[in-house]
Amino acid sequence: MPLMSDPLVIAGRSFASRLFLGTAGYPSQKVFLDALEASGAEMATASIRRMSLASYEESLADLLSGRVHILPNTAGCQTAKDAVLTAELAREALETDWVKLEVIGDRELLYPNVEELLKATEDLVGRGFVVLPYCNDDPVTCQKLADLGAATVMPLGSMIGSGLGIANPHMIELICARSPVPVVLDAGIGTASDAALAMELGCAAVLLNTAVSRAHDPVRMAAAFRHAVEGGRLARLSGRIPKKLHAEASSPEFGLVGS
Amino acid sequence: MPLMSDPLVIAGRSFASRLFLGTAGYPSQKVFLDALEASGAEMATASIRRMSLASYEESLADLLSGRVHILPNTAGCQTAKDAVLTAELAREALETDWVKLEVIGDRELLYPNVEELLKATEDLVGRGFVVLPYCNDDPVTCQKLADLGAATVMPLGSMIGSGLGIANPHMIELICARSPVPVVLDAGIGTASDAALAMELGCAAVLLNTAVSRAHDPVRMAAAFRHAVEGGRLARLSGRIPKKLHAEASSPEFGLVGS
Amino acid sequence: MPLMSDPLVIAGRSFASRLFLGTAGYPSQKVFLDALEASGAEMATASIRRMSLASYEESLADLLSGRVHILPNTAGCQTAKDAVLTAELAREALETDWVKLEVIGDRELLYPNVEELLKATEDLVGRGFVVLPYCNDDPVTCQKLADLGAATVMPLGSMIGSGLGIANPHMIELICARSPVPVVLDAGIGTASDAALAMELGCAAVLLNTAVSRAHDPVRMAAAFRHAVEGGRLARLSGRIPKKLHAEASSPEFGLVGS
Amino acid sequence: MPLMSDPLVIAGRSFASRLFLGTAGYPSQKVFLDALEASGAEMATASIRRMSLASYEESLADLLSGRVHILPNTAGCQTAKDAVLTAELAREALETDWVKLEVIGDRELLYPNVEELLKATEDLVGRGFVVLPYCNDDPVTCQKLADLGAATVMPLGSMIGSGLGIANPHMIELICARSPVPVVLDAGIGTASDAALAMELGCAAVLLNTAVSRAHDPVRMAAAFRHAVEGGRLARLSGRIPKKLHAEASSPEFGLVGS
Repeated sequence: MPLMSDPLVIAGRSFASRLFLGTAGYPSQKVFLDALEASGAEMATASIRRMSLASYEESLADLLSGRVHILPNTAGCQTAKDAVLTAELAREALETDWVKLEVIGDRELLYPNVEELLKATEDLVGRGFVVLPYCNDDPVTCQKLADLGAATVMPLGSMIGSGLGIANPHMIELICARSPVPVVLDAGIGTASDAALAMELGCAAVLLNTAVSRAHDPVRMAAAFRHAVEGGRLARLSGRIPKKLHAEASSPEFGLVGS
Repeated sequence: MPLMSDPLVIAGRSFASRLFLGTAGYPSQKVFLDALEASGAEMATASIRRMSLASYEESLADLLSGRVHILPNTAGCQTAKDAVLTAELAREALETDWVKLEVIGDRELLYPNVEELLKATEDLVGRGFVVLPYCNDDPVTCQKLADLGAATVMPLGSMIGSGLGIANPHMIELICARSPVPVVLDAGIGTASDAALAMELGCAAVLLNTAVSRAHDPVRMAAAFRHAVEGGRLARLSGRIPKKLHAEASSPEFGLVGS
Repeated sequence: MPLMSDPLVIAGRSFASRLFLGTAGYPSQKVFLDALEASGAEMATASIRRMSLASYEESLADLLSGRVHILPNTAGCQTAKDAVLTAELAREALETDWVKLEVIGDRELLYPNVEELLKATEDLVGRGFVVLPYCNDDPVTCQKLADLGAATVMPLGSMIGSGLGIANPHMIELICARSPVPVVLDAGIGTASDAALAMELGCAAVLLNTAVSRAHDPVRMAAAFRHAVEGGRLARLSGRIPKKLHAEASSPEFGLVGS
Repeated sequence: MPLMSDPLVIAGRSFASRLFLGTAGYPSQKVFLDALEASGAEMATASIRRMSLASYEESLADLLSGRVHILPNTAGCQTAKDAVLTAELAREALETDWVKLEVIGDRELLYPNVEELLKATEDLVGRGFVVLPYCNDDPVTCQKLADLGAATVMPLGSMIGSGLGIANPHMIELICARSPVPVVLDAGIGTASDAALAMELGCAAVLLNTAVSRAHDPVRMAAAFRHAVEGGRLARLSGRIPKKLHAEASSPEFGLVGS
């Protein structure tokens, strides 16, 4: 296709794809690899907590290297201290300074713990990490994270794994409009139109996992998201028509037959 | 890209693209032709009322032939009689039996006149036309149109040109689930995610005009819709995850560090 | 309470309450009568088809008379002919010219048959009935019904009994703004806020049944709707603040401590 | 009316009304007092920063005493230190331990600063205050506030003064379901149905200001909200019908005429 969206740059690294993929929950390794290819993603995230100890996950790390950038994450961490330790283990094991920072404050709703998240971000930035924090759709927290040196902010659309899409699109739009760093929509995406909407609101990229891995056909769904993210980004760049509260004919009614 | 959506068949004619484009309101003929190509559309609709008398529009007909199927429409008609006359003029001028049937009951809101629409459909089917009627998001009217022999039904998402998207997605989904003929979402689309959503709800295709022609960059927006329609269709075919009212971790928390 | 909403006038009859209640599906006659009183409703609708032949329903008619106006309805009718016959039976049995006109086109979705509805309205108006037709949220059909002499129009919020609320509030608002006769929201109401919203959009009244009769506590829910309809009407009359896309402090920050 | 909602208890104080009113931005003192009476509110909040130094506001304090409980607030504060100082001034001036705690992190969006809010809550609870903190619609922050001893949590519906209503009703519902202390919806309410919805989601009360003070007719709007809050609470207590994705007739169609 002739028209492509613009590349994304995070912390000096350039990405042609604005879709980041999680690695968990696929029916098989083959399905995961096929989905990864169909998605066009250039970055995939995996939980270092699991990866570092399980042989299956280690082979995953081997598989990913060469194909995509690995973004280790701190899923399951509940304190800044725990998250920092986990990030350090990831850096050692995977030889990357990048980390998707999750510090959860509620094991059921999987919402972030804002205080611990901010502490961990400050600490990790000080240790030379490239920090991509998962956070609330809260403009004040997003601003603080950017001020502390986060490479992106990653506000949630809705609860992790819920598939409810973007609960508060207006706030995501405001966060995007004000953020000094790229905004990556993380969590809640259920289907292609959710991802397109995220891009239209001004997000720089979308990270998703369950929506692909648990779809009936993960590989096809990965292709769906590839198109949706590209379509949403192009739409964002194209300047959509305003919403009008009345109808408007496509063209003025001149030259009617017989008139 | 490896995965493609399935072809669409209407009245025995097969389409690789599920996007139909209107021809009105572009800044220039060149922009229109570039947008048409970027969209990948194989069918374009134009108002025969204007086309038949204006030299510019006649050349449009020439331009389109060979590139895409022309779908003449009866925009501006307010009675069945008027619409049938217009369709007959189109058939003669353009040598096609296909017609997008519009019979408007309110010149401000551009909502259909259900009674006249049904009459015109019956009449045109009897005359051998392939009728694609623009109608309300009303399952009873849609069923009647199919019973009368319409080749598709084309319920509105919201008011023509409003860019408000799909006002009642649940009803569009029900119409799609029950329709014996392909459902083409017509009117109201504002941006890429609206089109993706239409496909996810079960629509067979999307017809749009203003959202492309009046975008700031029509050509890029046409490409956006190409991706969005493809992405939405693939998502439909992939079986999305259910919406959950609680969070769900991407993967169970086994093998934690230190445990 | 000091402030009351304005009375509603339909076909020359004045109502202090803008809530109309259905009579079906209550756990017992006592619960129904208590709910009716708690609701403050001055008009209740009942199906003549059932009422005319069942002894239970006949006693219902006796019970209602003196308390409220009875509004017989043509629920279950599928043709204009059938509806007109039913209305005539009701007029004879109940000595009222008023009729809530239902002509259903789909026994599963309970959506109106627009063509038959319009025919029946014309016929019944000609026979001297005061016709209150249940119809789609379609501005063209609403206008036609008013033109034919309907005393109100009664567009659906969403499917009968669904409790989904008002699927397309913008269109209900447009219908209200343009209607020459009172608009009564009929069908789909699930809870108090739905009814308040209907009034805020400009509806003259709300008709509901299932939301009260099938609530866990129908009597209390009837009181809830009494308040919600009154609150919604008062809000409509009060001129709400506009929606703003940014925050606005309640008052300017002058006179800060220490400044 | 026969049926009343249940009383609300906060920190041992009982309220018959579940509506709290702000005092800022009214056209005149008379309009404010009339609105206050029409609302039925038993608690009104005012900014101590302004009140303590301005003679107009001091007379407001005199006016309020005897009519309603005064709830001083810390509007305009941006640090915990500043908020604590302001609360202490309020306690001295107004002889109340109650304080609505606002610590703002963004002067444009008026979103809370979570870290400072938590610090201030802890400090004020230690000083013997009854703390009602304005916070994000974030279940983790709400839980922390309750754990620190807050008497209520007051999540925002949407931005202060925006009139956008409840942006994320599902999350408000989850917060209510999990909160060990009463949840008071604060900020964003625009009209009566928004307040009714808040109560239906499980909120214990609603606090609003601009929606009344800046309405075209503040006194009537205050009455509207009185009804809406009462209606919403009663609906919550009544057990609403479930939402169904298909229609359901009010009653089974037995005994049809002629059958």
